[in-house]
Amino acid sequence: MKKLTCLLLLNSLFVFAQVNDEQKIKEIYKSALTNAKCYPWLDDLSNKIGSRLSGSTGAEKAVLYTKAQLETLGLDKVYLQEVMVPKWVRGEKEVGYLQIGKQKITFPICALGGSVATPKKGLQAAIIEVNSLEELIALGTEKVKGKIIFFNRPMNPEFIETFKAYGSCVDQRSSGAREAGKLGAIAVIVRSMNLRLDDFPHTGATNYGETPKEQRIPAAAISTNGAELLSKSLKKNPNAPFYFKQSCQTFDDVLSYNVIGEITGSEHPERIMIVGGHLDSWDLGDGSHDDGAGCVQSMEVLNIFKNIGYKPKNTIRVVLFMNEENGVRGGKEYEIQSNKNKENHIFALESDSGGFSPRGFTIEADERNFNKIAGWATLFEPYFVHKFVKGHSGVDIGPLKSNHIVKVGLQPDSQRYFDYHHAANDTFDAVNKRELELGAATMAALMYLIDQYGIGENL
Amino acid sequence: MKKLTCLLLLNSLFVFAQVNDEQKIKEIYKSALTNAKCYPWLDDLSNKIGSRLSGSTGAEKAVLYTKAQLETLGLDKVYLQEVMVPKWVRGEKEVGYLQIGKQKITFPICALGGSVATPKKGLQAAIIEVNSLEELIALGTEKVKGKIIFFNRPMNPEFIETFKAYGSCVDQRSSGAREAGKLGAIAVIVRSMNLRLDDFPHTGATNYGETPKEQRIPAAAISTNGAELLSKSLKKNPNAPFYFKQSCQTFDDVLSYNVIGEITGSEHPERIMIVGGHLDSWDLGDGSHDDGAGCVQSMEVLNIFKNIGYKPKNTIRVVLFMNEENGVRGGKEYEIQSNKNKENHIFALESDSGGFSPRGFTIEADERNFNKIAGWATLFEPYFVHKFVKGHSGVDIGPLKSNHIVKVGLQPDSQRYFDYHHAANDTFDAVNKRELELGAATMAALMYLIDQYGIGENL
Repeated sequence: MKKLTCLLLLNSLFVFAQVNDEQKIKEIYKSALTNAKCYPWLDDLSNKIGSRLSGSTGAEKAVLYTKAQLETLGLDKVYLQEVMVPKWVRGEKEVGYLQIGKQKITFPICALGGSVATPKKGLQAAIIEVNSLEELIALGTEKVKGKIIFFNRPMNPEFIETFKAYGSCVDQRSSGAREAGKLGAIAVIVRSMNLRLDDFPHTGATNYGETPKEQRIPAAAISTNGAELLSKSLKKNPNAPFYFKQSCQTFDDVLSYNVIGEITGSEHPERIMIVGGHLDSWDLGDGSHDDGAGCVQSMEVLNIFKNIGYKPKNTIRVVLFMNEENGVRGGKEYEIQSNKNKENHIFALESDSGGFSPRGFTIEADERNFNKIAGWATLFEPYFVHKFVKGHSGVDIGPLKSNHIVKVGLQPDSQRYFDYHHAANDTFDAVNKRELELGAATMAALMYLIDQYGIGENL
Repeated sequence: MKKLTCLLLLNSLFVFAQVNDEQKIKEIYKSALTNAKCYPWLDDLSNKIGSRLSGSTGAEKAVLYTKAQLETLGLDKVYLQEVMVPKWVRGEKEVGYLQIGKQKITFPICALGGSVATPKKGLQAAIIEVNSLEELIALGTEKVKGKIIFFNRPMNPEFIETFKAYGSCVDQRSSGAREAGKLGAIAVIVRSMNLRLDDFPHTGATNYGETPKEQRIPAAAISTNGAELLSKSLKKNPNAPFYFKQSCQTFDDVLSYNVIGEITGSEHPERIMIVGGHLDSWDLGDGSHDDGAGCVQSMEVLNIFKNIGYKPKNTIRVVLFMNEENGVRGGKEYEIQSNKNKENHIFALESDSGGFSPRGFTIEADERNFNKIAGWATLFEPYFVHKFVKGHSGVDIGPLKSNHIVKVGLQPDSQRYFDYHHAANDTFDAVNKRELELGAATMAALMYLIDQYGIGENL
């Protein structure tokens, strides 16, 4: 009988907890949909401040703005964490055209992030189209030397998740210049990482690896429509020279900051749960989806907890990382400082996949912790959040290596992300208020559950 | 032993069928994402033809265009079905302003569909804000008589599904003029059914019911920003008169058509499965989401079957219904003709909730048939289609009353739908190609499964 009573008691406690969680999560979503600040915050970041490339005035302004906004929330601490970041500047508008007799066909291009400039007067050479690094390497030095290499493999539309299409295509952008340079090419033009046919060139980092500075060759992206036209033009005029000019430049590293705010835990102040995105963006648009959305959603998590009067047991910290796009210096510095201060991180949640309707989470955890999180799926059903899968969490929280830390990435609907990613049309109007707010609520709901029931070593 | 062999055989048949279905559904999605016509079809409907209000030139052109496109698909039959439809014309751009002393505050308004005109010179009267039909009725004849009634209850953002917010708000638009007219009001202005604050007035049908023609009062929608400003202005100037002019007109019914195409079933030609949307739209935008998307997705289902070489057992019929928006005459006529011809419809699928990422289905069926469809959920998991719920299927297939028919509505993500619904910004650029294609594939996959395994009385 004693055992039965015990079981009944446990059962009723469980039912009570379940109902309580349902209620709390309902409050979280209601707060996000009726009383959120994330959308006006994003409006300011996008329309008053604009692009926020590391080392730029926009990035500096964004640091001050978000710190000031966090200070209005009544948190226990708001502070800046110093971090040295690279400073790369695009310079003048890039020029690229194919010369066919007296006719010039001009293409929308933009320097890839980190690229070197062309000579001041530009460069001109025959251009060879390839579809992969393998195809480039098979051509060999003889055919590549002195040429411009045009990487034109499109993202594969068959993938349902567009991030998979990106992952299987982006080697052209990240490694194209390095590999073509080894074979004596003098420049590369890379098809934009975009599933849509349009006129926006999409930038993004290119990585020269160990290539000595004087051997680095300039790299630019071309819009998808431009890539189609260039390919077609080259089929008719394979020897037509391509003219290419860009004046981008890398300066010395400059001082910048991660922006941090926290609510100190009421029971376990030493256990830290972080939620974040990256404050820097590329320079072409406003960085509204990448990753203004993730920043304001992360700030909103703390705003929601304040609004509904939830006092977390563990310390909840929002971190707006600097320099994800071209160096991850903010993420790395955060980990260094965390180790110095002997901090104990139990959980990290990142939003860096755009401000679209939330669909679920990708979870980096062992089986036991994964099952714990996936076990909460029914609590998310009323909000149509249904994907609980193992997978990469986020680039900024990547360096965090505390013992047993569990890391999660918010997974919004991915269909539209690469329409805007790293391009001039990643602007505020491309973000829907409700989709952004639902993402923030979904993040807050998971933070709440982890705070209530523990994770990692605290299971 | 015999029983065991039998069971093993059955089991291996089941596994074979499952693998086969997975493979076929994969082909369906691949076809939609790599080889679809729905997006260029929508481009033509939206940008070459434009709005398609019943009885308009646009509607006529759309009938001819979609019939011609269906004829290119190699179907077994393509034909038009005659249907008489109402013809309502907006006339000149509407004018609405509040007169405060010498100052005029002008508001973005548009006549509600079916509304009568104001007198030619417009009308002017004091305007009273209410939040519901109940509040109007409580005011009574004395306070309402001679006034303009301003319905200003916003859609409730707390609903996760925006259609629920719409459903609990739209009575102001559909019944406001009728009810206010009974109490002697001379006109109504209704806050647009839009969760976003912007400057687009959203039209939509208003229903006078049995009100005699001469007693009908004019009704217009005001943009959400306009409604906020009007409310604020009235708080300061409660007696300021509102001026309102519109010149819309209802003409005699005109002849139009449902557009129909079909692949005759190879095993059960007499069993008909339909898939459809409505070809008419409101007159302000292009009707790209409502319901150009549903039309081209429905056409795409047949295109996909042709592309992958799938020969359906049952007759698969696409129906593009005329006049959903202001009369449902196409849906009603289709049912009348179906009965005359003693047709046997076993299944109907409608897409009329926008061309957004597909999330699932709402299913009108008895328990047995519902469970059958919901039992296929795992086949849709790779495509992130996860909602299998009971609910309203669609307005056009509503009149279909064949014995045991099962009816389903495609449920796309609903967050952005009411940003565009019935407004001037429901245009082609608001539709994402991949989201549209994924919707079409999701419809084709369900049609395939129903065709393979039967439904309704054929279980």
